[in-house]
This record gives sequence, C-alpha cells and structure tokens, in this order.
Amino acid sequence: MQITTIVEREKVKLHNGVLITGLPGIGMIGNIVGRHLVESLKTQKIANLYSPHFPHQVFMGKHGGLRLIKNRFYRARGKPVVVLLGDVQAISSTGQYEVADVIIQYAKKIGIKTIITIGGYSTGKISEERQIFGAATHKSLVQKLKKHNVVFGKARGSIVGAAGLLPALGRLRGLEGACIMGETHGGYVDATAAKNIVMLLSRYLGIPIDIKKLEQKAKESEKILKKIEEEIQKNVMIPYEPTKRPVSYIR
Amino acid sequence: MQITTIVEREKVKLHNGVLITGLPGIGMIGNIVGRHLVESLKTQKIANLYSPHFPHQVFMGKHGGLRLIKNRFYRARGKPVVVLLGDVQAISSTGQYEVADVIIQYAKKIGIKTIITIGGYSTGKISEERQIFGAATHKSLVQKLKKHNVVFGKARGSIVGAAGLLPALGRLRGLEGACIMGETHGGYVDATAAKNIVMLLSRYLGIPIDIKKLEQKAKESEKILKKIEEEIQKNVMIPYEPTKRPVSYIR
Amino acid sequence: MQITTIVEREKVKLHNGVLITGLPGIGMIGNIVGRHLVESLKTQKIANLYSPHFPHQVFMGKHGGLRLIKNRFYRARGKPVVVLLGDVQAISSTGQYEVADVIIQYAKKIGIKTIITIGGYSTGKISEERQIFGAATHKSLVQKLKKHNVVFGKARGSIVGAAGLLPALGRLRGLEGACIMGETHGGYVDATAAKNIVMLLSRYLGIPIDIKKLEQKAKESEKILKKIEEEIQKNVMIPYEPTKRPVSYIR
Amino acid sequence: MQITTIVEREKVKLHNGVLITGLPGIGMIGNIVGRHLVESLKTQKIANLYSPHFPHQVFMGKHGGLRLIKNRFYRARGKPVVVLLGDVQAISSTGQYEVADVIIQYAKKIGIKTIITIGGYSTGKISEERQIFGAATHKSLVQKLKKHNVVFGKARGSIVGAAGLLPALGRLRGLEGACIMGETHGGYVDATAAKNIVMLLSRYLGIPIDIKKLEQKAKESEKILKKIEEEIQKNVMIPYEPTKRPVSYIR
Repeated sequence: MQITTIVEREKVKLHNGVLITGLPGIGMIGNIVGRHLVESLKTQKIANLYSPHFPHQVFMGKHGGLRLIKNRFYRARGKPVVVLLGDVQAISSTGQYEVADVIIQYAKKIGIKTIITIGGYSTGKISEERQIFGAATHKSLVQKLKKHNVVFGKARGSIVGAAGLLPALGRLRGLEGACIMGETHGGYVDATAAKNIVMLLSRYLGIPIDIKKLEQKAKESEKILKKIEEEIQKNVMIPYEPTKRPVSYIR
Repeated sequence: MQITTIVEREKVKLHNGVLITGLPGIGMIGNIVGRHLVESLKTQKIANLYSPHFPHQVFMGKHGGLRLIKNRFYRARGKPVVVLLGDVQAISSTGQYEVADVIIQYAKKIGIKTIITIGGYSTGKISEERQIFGAATHKSLVQKLKKHNVVFGKARGSIVGAAGLLPALGRLRGLEGACIMGETHGGYVDATAAKNIVMLLSRYLGIPIDIKKLEQKAKESEKILKKIEEEIQKNVMIPYEPTKRPVSYIR
Repeated sequence: MQITTIVEREKVKLHNGVLITGLPGIGMIGNIVGRHLVESLKTQKIANLYSPHFPHQVFMGKHGGLRLIKNRFYRARGKPVVVLLGDVQAISSTGQYEVADVIIQYAKKIGIKTIITIGGYSTGKISEERQIFGAATHKSLVQKLKKHNVVFGKARGSIVGAAGLLPALGRLRGLEGACIMGETHGGYVDATAAKNIVMLLSRYLGIPIDIKKLEQKAKESEKILKKIEEEIQKNVMIPYEPTKRPVSYIR
Repeated sequence: MQITTIVEREKVKLHNGVLITGLPGIGMIGNIVGRHLVESLKTQKIANLYSPHFPHQVFMGKHGGLRLIKNRFYRARGKPVVVLLGDVQAISSTGQYEVADVIIQYAKKIGIKTIITIGGYSTGKISEERQIFGAATHKSLVQKLKKHNVVFGKARGSIVGAAGLLPALGRLRGLEGACIMGETHGGYVDATAAKNIVMLLSRYLGIPIDIKKLEQKAKESEKILKKIEEEIQKNVMIPYEPTKRPVSYIR
C-alpha cells in the first residue's frame, strides 16, 4: 500500500448527501457519536479506507482473525447520510492531508454535499451544562446549525486533525462543511457530550435516533466525572492534564 | 534507490506457493526460523529486495566485501515454498506499508497463494510449556493450522510490523495468510520457541526438516533462560523489560 | 491535498515584478513588514497557497468560520509588486524546498523578476542603532540595495527557511533575489526593525508608504525593549535566549 | 526543488572514470581529502547537485552573496578523475538513498567505472601508526587496493551514510566501488589520516599530488592530538566521546 486507498464494497449515489465523521479525538466524542449512529441507524458498510499513513499494525480478533487498521464508511438505509468510522487518524501532518483529500474525492463521487465532523472542545473543567460549539465553511450552514443551538464564534483557536481538515479542505473542492464540538474536560471520555451531539444530529438530519443505550453510558460517565470532580475539590487528586496543547485545540 | 525494488536472480513460477517470512522481531524467533529453513531445506536464492526505507548503512564482510542492507528470497528446491530472510524491517510506518506492498506484488507474480509470517508473542515471563499462537485472514486457514495445535483467538491486541502487515495486506490483494507467533518472554532470544515453530512448519508443509542444530541451540537457550529465572527468583536480578509496548504487541 | 497547490483568484501578468515575502520568523520582522505593506498599499488578493507540509490544523474565525492554514499573495494596484503573507512556514526541510519551488514557479508565471525576502538577523542584544543586513544572488542587486544603506558581507553564516531558500532557489530558476534582514535581539518582536525595512522598501520600490501606524507600534516596542534592557542591567532579569542556533542564523 | 537534481555546467565523457567523494564525516577525513584534491589537481567544476533532502538553509558569502547548500563535481584536467565535494549529506535515510541514486546515475552517464569513497574509521584512541582500511564491491578492486597497503577484512560492522551507500548501490547499477577509511580517534579532525589517504590515491591513480600544504596541516593536527593525549594521560581531561554509535561505524 503506497497511497491512501478506498475499496468500495457497494456503489452509492446520493442526492445532497451528508457525511458525518466519527474519528478518535478529544473525549472520544467523535468516536462514540459515530459508533452510536452506525449501530442505531440501519446502516451497511459501503467502503473501507486503508492508508500507509496509519500505524503499521494489524488487529487480531476474537476468533483468530487478522485485519488492517482502517477507516470505514457506512450508509444509512433510505437516507442520504454516510458515517465515517475509524480506528485511527493518520500519524503525520502530510498523511492527514493525503487521507483528507482521498476522503473528499470519495465523498464527492458518491454525492456528498455537506461534511459534518464531530470533535471535542477541551476546556479543562467539568461543566454541568455542556455547550455544543461549531465552526463552518459557509454562512448558510452556520445559520442552519445555530437554529439547533450550536454556538458559533465562541470556540477560537485552531482545530487539529481530520475534524478541521475535512470541512476546510472540502470547501476548496466545492463542498460545504462544519465541525461540531462538544464542550468537554478533555481528559476523560465524555458520553454525555456525545449524547447531546447525537440528539442534535437527529434533529438536524430529521432522523429519529434511539439514544437509550447512550443515555445509560452518559449516566455512568457523569457519575465518574462527578466523583473525579469531588476528589479534585478535596485536593486528594491532581486532575489529569488533557494535553500540552492550548485549551482551544480540538481533534 | 528511490522506491523499494526487487532484483530477481531467477525466474520462478510456483503452484499454490507458500511464502514464509523470517524477519527480525520479538525473541528473534522469526529470524531463527527463517535461517534454519534456508540452511536445512535445499534452497537457492531467487531474489533480493532493497529499499530506501531500510537504514542508510551497508555491511562490511569478513573478506573486505561490502553490501547493501537487504531482504532475500530463497526457494526450497522441488517444493512450492519460498523463505524471505532479512537483516531489518523498514524504519518508518509508511516504509513498512511500501515494502509489504512490493513483497506481495512479487509473491503474487511467482505464484504464492499463502503468506505465513513468523513472530514472537511476548508474555513477559518464561514459561515451561510455550504455546504457538496464530491469527489468520481466512477461516479455512485457521482450521488447517488448528489441526497442528496452533492456538487461535487467545493472542489479542495488535501485531506491529511486517509479521502483521504481510498477511493482512495480502488478503486485500487476494492472498491468504497467517501470522504464527511463538509464546516467549520477549526480552531474550528464544531458540526453543523457534524450534517448535520449525517442527510445526515441517508438519504443516509436509516437508521433513532436520532440527538437530536447532535442538542444540534450544538446549543452550533453555539453560540460559533457566539461569535467568533462578536469578530473578533470588531477587538478585531485575528482569529485562522486553518493551514499553503492551504485552500483546508482536513483531 | 497531496502536493503544495496555488489557487489563483485573479490572473496577473507583471513586467519586471518584485515579490516581497512576509513570513513568520526572527523578531516577527518579516510578518510585520508583510502585513503593513498589504494594509498600506492598495492591495488585492490574487492567490492562496495550500500545502500538506503546513501543520494539519485549521483556524476558527470570529464569526464561526473555518479555514485552512495558507500563504496568501497580494498585488499592489498599479505597481508591479506582489506581497506574500503567511501564517506559517512548512514544517519539514523537504516541505520547505517543495513550497519554495511552487512559489517560484508561480512567481515566474506572473512575471516576477526579483524576490525580496524579509527576515531578522538575531544578535542577542538590543542595539540603539539597528542596521539592515543583506545577502543577494547577483552583484547588480547588491549594488542597488547598497545605495539604500543595506549592509552586505557583514551578516555571515546561514539563513534558515524560506527567507534564504526563495532567493537562492529562485536564482537556479533564472530569477534574482535578496534577503533583507533587520538587526534585532532575536528574543522579542521588533517593530522598529520592521519600520526601518518598510522605509527602505518604500525608497527602493519608489512607492510612498504611510508608516504612521508602524511608527506608533515601533515606539511602543522600543519602550518595552528599553525596559527589558534596564531590567537586564539591574541583573534582575535573565534575558530570554532567542534560539539555540548560532547567532548568525536567520529566518 | 522537489527531487534531487544535478545541474551540469559542462558535458563530460570519461573512459573508465574514477569518482572520488569528499563528504563530511568522521574526523572530517573525506572532506579534507576532497578539498585537497580539488585544490591540488587542476580541476574545474562540471556540475552541482541540489536536494530537498539537504537542510533548508542557504549560506551567505564574504561579499554578500547567497547560495543553496549543494554538492559539487570537479573534473581533474586530462585525467579520468572526478571529485565530489559537499557541504553536507542528506538528513534522512530515504534522502541518502535518493541522493546516492542520483549521483550514481550521473556517474554512469559521464563514464565513471569506479566509485571510491573516503571516510574515517573511528577507534576511540589516538594511534601513532594509523592504518587505512578498505571495503570493496569486487575482489579485483580489493586486490588492486591491497597492493597499496589498504587493509581489508579488518574493519567490520557497518558504514553509515554516503561513504557506504555509493559503492554498494553503485554495484547494483553495474559499477565497482570501494570505501577507503582512515583509522582515526573519531573525536577530532585528523589531517594526518587525510594526508595518508591522499598519498595512497596519488599512487593508486598514478597522478602526482603535491601534499606540502597537507603535511603542514597534518603536523599541526598531530601536535594538537599529542597534547590531547598527554592531557588524557594526566587525567586532567576527559576525552570527547566521538559518537554514541559503535566504534565500527563510519561515515
């Protein structure tokens, strides 16, 4: 494998399609959202993406199987919605650009018009009320998402990785896109922020999505977060510093 | 040399060929197995592989010779078996993907159907009975290897480097493949694990292989390992930590 | 994005054009000069440059916008002068060469004859009188710039990054070029050095440039520098070491 | 500049040409030898080599000039001898392979048959009698060089960088080659080892070479080395450890 490659399993042609990405990043929010969408919507896999810019590892499965690290595209049946789910992001900066480019070419080919990436916005504290921040390539998309209470202009700084590159590079190729970021501590997996974003996407896409499982996960994650917070306040525990990056960085 | 290149010394066309790899990795098991096969089977070199992703070094020989770092392909005479032997693996992740790709292209060209890579599975302890773990791309291959007591589904996590990439990437190109891993401490050269795998391959391939030399090496290595273990139990010695990687990583 | 790409917004054809670069570097002098030229001259953007060798980040704007990291080309109306302004330089050595190459190809296409890069020359001390040093590809250019009191042959050593690569690589492609370096401490933003270079460029290009805003900035930056110097002399403060590179390195 | 490029200044066609390389490395022996050959033989520059794998720096000259980092080819007038002189070697392993490949292509084009690289063989001690070690691609070349007291088979291990890659890769392309290594401490510039190699080359090539200047340099360098040794024996000084690499590594 010498360049990033997409292997299609099924030919797809959407009208005004939406691509939603669920890649690993801050608070694992993108990944949780992506997994939930793939499981809750009736989806089927339409393509795999392999890249020499992913780590040179393969995964072993429960039954003695063996598979390359990859990103996967799932289509929601009967809806113009595709979910991108991934084990990893490319491990170098040039790799990130190459992978993003290949994803956008594929997206255009199958009729995607809008790319919505999901990430976390790390604040370094555990807030009761967690907002959903956004940044988008076109004003019309900003307006549409604002109606669903996505907050624009408040998250500042830069977005690191695929969550930022995909919409920004997509714009250069004639697509529109937004990055949706769940406000989160940054040092912990945050199922509540993920749940909020799934609810937002359900409204935005006009597709009912069952969130029971996610609500359960969110409750558990809240208990853990509350406990962590109490420990911090008792000064018993030093909070885990999410990253050495400035707080405004997102993945 | 700007891309990975194979220089053929002899044209080969096999029917349902098997490629066995003996590259450096955990416990040097792959390398020992590969060397023993090349020496015990009647083999002749059919190709060299050079790559700009290998270190920029050359080796000096006993008689004042000079040669590039390379990987070598040996064919077992009269059998559809090829052994890949190497000084090194590629030094970057993208390099590993490129080298694996070139190996697979060559393998297909000469009629290889199955790629069997040999590695070590590091457990961090010295076991009396060392199992042989496997992971494979096809159920049929799992079944075949199980008959020879290869244990599937027990080794978990990920396999780093060519031992994993070759079968997993080969599958994408229409080949079948397995990674055979000798259970080992991970911090020491393990000739016993290598011997066990050679015996397995002999049965699996239906080719008698003389293991006298390897038995000798294994006995010596067992003595050393026993001594190390005794020292550890006397708390005289701190065991060498095999890697900083989790125990389930294999090379 | 798999290679460095220029997206033209307007077709331009200059006669004996001059390209002036304002990229980040020592004392932020290049950047300040570039920004001031773009703001003071009547300029309009003619092209954007994107590169996979830039960091894999995107910037969020005040109003919820989202954009790739880029370098931008601005043309001064009615004058054969183009200013290159950038957020960043390429993050690897091979990336620097690629980006420089693409810039030079574009420069030649739009009729640029001379590339003038702006940098800082770090001396590690705060001088009252700050000279402007130069290095150029052709004697004729050395002579022209000497008339405007640019000092040649005194700055020695090597120039790191685009400030050096663009004129030196441009020469190989048939262009002439110079690097103009403001003498500066190296550890602080130096608006005075930037102001001096803008005044030089105004004379050299024969274009009046309003420097009121820059004079204001320079006064403020001088106050800060004087204070820093006083603190250093009182031994209260250890001066910030500009770089680990030898003093003669420039960006 | 996106790939390594040779810019020819003069067309050359040699018969059984010899390429001698003088690149920076251990003890600066290669570089001193190369410089002395270029200065002592009547040479003229025939080509420059530029590479994106060199550092992204340019050099400033005495008179305010500016030039790219490069490697240079000089031809000895009336002799089939070319000297390669360089500021630097490529900074990555893949870069080293690419640059070596481009050099070999050019060497073949101008009629080079034999590549002789000059390096240092670091022993970590200051010997009175310093031997010249060799490693070569062909037995015939070993024999020829042995007649001139080059010692083969004693230097073991690996050679890092262009000194090893050029002859070894050249062999793959149909050339013959040797690496000539001056025994040296490794931590100091060694003009004596360089002088010995120049004398060897003079005999081997059958070209008289004036070594007066080099003898002067060698005397001075010997005085310095003797002083260092005395200091070491007085235990006043801790010897500078040449490298973290094993002693048998050469550049």
